[in-house]
Amino acid sequence: MSDHVFERITVPEPLLDTLRQLLGDRLSTNTAILTQHGTDEGWHQASPPDAVAFARSTEEVATIVKHCAEHQVPIIPFGCGSSLEGHIAAIHGGICIDLSQMDQILEVNAEDLDCRVQAGVTREQLNQDLRATGLFFPIDPGANASIGGMAATRASGTNAVRYGTMRDNVLNLTVVTAQGDIIRTGNRARKSSAGYDLTRLFVGSEGTLGIITEVSLRLYGIPEAMSAATCAFPSVDAAVDTVIQTIQMGIPVARIELLDELQMKAINRYANMQHPEAPMLFFEFHGTPASTQEQAEQVEAIAQDFGAQAFQWASRQEDRNALWAARHKAYYAAMNFQPGKSGMPTDVCVPISRLAEAIRETREDCDASPLTCPIVGHVGDGNFHTLILLDPNNPDEVTEANRLHDRMVERALRLGGTCTGEHGIGYGKLNFMQTEHGDAYLAMMRSIKQALDPHNLMNPGKLVPAESSH
Amino acid sequence: MSDHVFERITVPEPLLDTLRQLLGDRLSTNTAILTQHGTDEGWHQASPPDAVAFARSTEEVATIVKHCAEHQVPIIPFGCGSSLEGHIAAIHGGICIDLSQMDQILEVNAEDLDCRVQAGVTREQLNQDLRATGLFFPIDPGANASIGGMAATRASGTNAVRYGTMRDNVLNLTVVTAQGDIIRTGNRARKSSAGYDLTRLFVGSEGTLGIITEVSLRLYGIPEAMSAATCAFPSVDAAVDTVIQTIQMGIPVARIELLDELQMKAINRYANMQHPEAPMLFFEFHGTPASTQEQAEQVEAIAQDFGAQAFQWASRQEDRNALWAARHKAYYAAMNFQPGKSGMPTDVCVPISRLAEAIRETREDCDASPLTCPIVGHVGDGNFHTLILLDPNNPDEVTEANRLHDRMVERALRLGGTCTGEHGIGYGKLNFMQTEHGDAYLAMMRSIKQALDPHNLMNPGKLVPAESSH
Repeated sequence: MSDHVFERITVPEPLLDTLRQLLGDRLSTNTAILTQHGTDEGWHQASPPDAVAFARSTEEVATIVKHCAEHQVPIIPFGCGSSLEGHIAAIHGGICIDLSQMDQILEVNAEDLDCRVQAGVTREQLNQDLRATGLFFPIDPGANASIGGMAATRASGTNAVRYGTMRDNVLNLTVVTAQGDIIRTGNRARKSSAGYDLTRLFVGSEGTLGIITEVSLRLYGIPEAMSAATCAFPSVDAAVDTVIQTIQMGIPVARIELLDELQMKAINRYANMQHPEAPMLFFEFHGTPASTQEQAEQVEAIAQDFGAQAFQWASRQEDRNALWAARHKAYYAAMNFQPGKSGMPTDVCVPISRLAEAIRETREDCDASPLTCPIVGHVGDGNFHTLILLDPNNPDEVTEANRLHDRMVERALRLGGTCTGEHGIGYGKLNFMQTEHGDAYLAMMRSIKQALDPHNLMNPGKLVPAESSH
Repeated sequence: MSDHVFERITVPEPLLDTLRQLLGDRLSTNTAILTQHGTDEGWHQASPPDAVAFARSTEEVATIVKHCAEHQVPIIPFGCGSSLEGHIAAIHGGICIDLSQMDQILEVNAEDLDCRVQAGVTREQLNQDLRATGLFFPIDPGANASIGGMAATRASGTNAVRYGTMRDNVLNLTVVTAQGDIIRTGNRARKSSAGYDLTRLFVGSEGTLGIITEVSLRLYGIPEAMSAATCAFPSVDAAVDTVIQTIQMGIPVARIELLDELQMKAINRYANMQHPEAPMLFFEFHGTPASTQEQAEQVEAIAQDFGAQAFQWASRQEDRNALWAARHKAYYAAMNFQPGKSGMPTDVCVPISRLAEAIRETREDCDASPLTCPIVGHVGDGNFHTLILLDPNNPDEVTEANRLHDRMVERALRLGGTCTGEHGIGYGKLNFMQTEHGDAYLAMMRSIKQALDPHNLMNPGKLVPAESSH
């Protein structure tokens, strides 16, 4: 529960009138709508905008931005509201541009393995639409997020170890700039050396440089075969050593997830399962029938070298689903482990050689705390999350949760990592930016922000720390 | 042979004195050295700098930049001089900073599959050094380029289809800014959502925003097995259809190279070989012995559906080398096809579904021209090159070569592609930027350039078209 106090601007009535004229009842100042648009799935205080504009086209977004710019009113883009670090909070007030009605899949180029969608398309909608083509879009951050939001936060998830993150899978973007101009950041060529990589500049920019309205994505053929495996380890170190060797041998695993002992206990209790209450790895393999079997055999051999027990392997869909059921229940199991408590999610990422150390020290820290914190990791990338369970109305628990979180981030930075592998900064992690990046990096971020958004109207107060903040 | 005329500044003597004091005989104004540093491997007129500063550390680069900035003198970074579009030409005069003495491999983190090198390390040096670790760095642009130069031009090459380009394989950079500050653009975490992607902003920025002095790279395990295959096709279309289906099936080929009929004729003549004089594909497969064999079998089946003949497959190293020998001789064979002529390289990249069309029309254009133009393509990415053979002292041939090149680029852009897949813009392709990207994109590039290099001292005249150029 953040205790920041921000100055809010007052949105002038003439701007609201203009927008109402443009959008009719697609401009809303209804309290419930405002509250919904100021509330994400994270931990931070809700900050409703002054109005929500439901846009239906890139041109409409451009027009709204121009009107807001004329009145110097902040603009906050909104996809699904599934972000976690206050990204969509209107902390300085202003107009929220809701892109959820921009939900058209504009092109699917099956031969080129790419597609073009409006920013409000969700990843589940996209994959449902793609099914008939034999293609899929692999990035899976858990939530059924919008593609625009996923691009804006540089999202990833469980299968980034094979398919990369949004950084790797966005081909190009259509963006409305702070001036209300429309830019296409690239074309459909798979690679190009023609100009600054504006695509990558906007991926992860969290709405602070402009508004992403359309996204071209790489797609992949649905694998001919998929198989899954699970196994339990005597220690987190043994599990992580298995991961390191798997990656180093170049075995192209699609997913490697670690669930720690406490997380397994939470799942057994929540879902009445009988898994070993020990660190477990969950694998998924994509390829031909022969290659997925070979991958599983190679991984089993490695895992056994590190003392794995109860190695189970499945290739039929229903058996795979049964094996992975525990992983899919991890979040709700953790949230329900202590009834009545909320969860503060964390998201550090370290070089894989330091992962065992990072998780072990985190585990010790949490075990020494009165709070309970199950751990889940996308370990192929060195990324892991604790869910710190706490009563948000108990100030001592809030302080303790923040202390644990701060120490996790300090530890990750000391080990050569980052404060966020995939959730982003929003305003929730703004105070880690100085330590992670240092003065010269932040000065360059501020120069770019100032050059592209000189009046600081695009999602102000997010991602780019103010100069006075250190 | 470009007929641009540029205004050159005069480098003030006091700056040269200061740099001489700093660097001793590592500041050179020797004519041969100047000429060498103004000459790349491409087609454009040489433009020697006024002096060459051989730097040995990031701090030294920062000091040189500060002195140059104080005197408002342009700064041109130089790695190996293997670029092709005038990237290193000192068209406005100034100081060339040669990074070739920054050739230390600073770290190899085998467990994390990454390393950190100074910018002057060449890719062959790196791979030689890595051999004992069982790891390798896959990006191979042909030339034994410096890693810093490869990052600055967003280079790729034959195996980008599997391993990506420099965009995908640079983890982070150390950069000296136009102000002489030193920035580290990221850390060793495999993924992060913390801040603007300054790494990707500098990859491909061609020295126009700052000077890359150190590079962290992703590495890969040397595959347990490699195999190679070649086959001939009745038409370019049939070859390209084979490529499309291979990619779409997700077969993880490491290399797919196309050589057209004329290129094969050049090779047979140059190397006294007896290959079919027909469009040929050259494949390389990386994986386990079983998976490379499976990949080859899958590709053979696809190729035969499209009428391939003479499919040959080899897994032993000497047999693989024999199969690929023709591909390795392609460049020199083309250069020697018409004795006494030079070659103008081209570099378009299109969506793979338009590749057959792009190559066919290019072939027809070239066949109707008095000039001879063999074609080689990194077809898995949709990227291909013609080498336009011409006498550089014959103005008619120069005009005709430029006409063919312009038409290739227009065609690529019409088909949704780019004027350069991997060579970059330098000043040689500057006049294509407007057509490829449009006003809003170029305005944003200029804003960023202006914000980070307000006095336009960093490799001026490259990559970012001046506002008056359209």
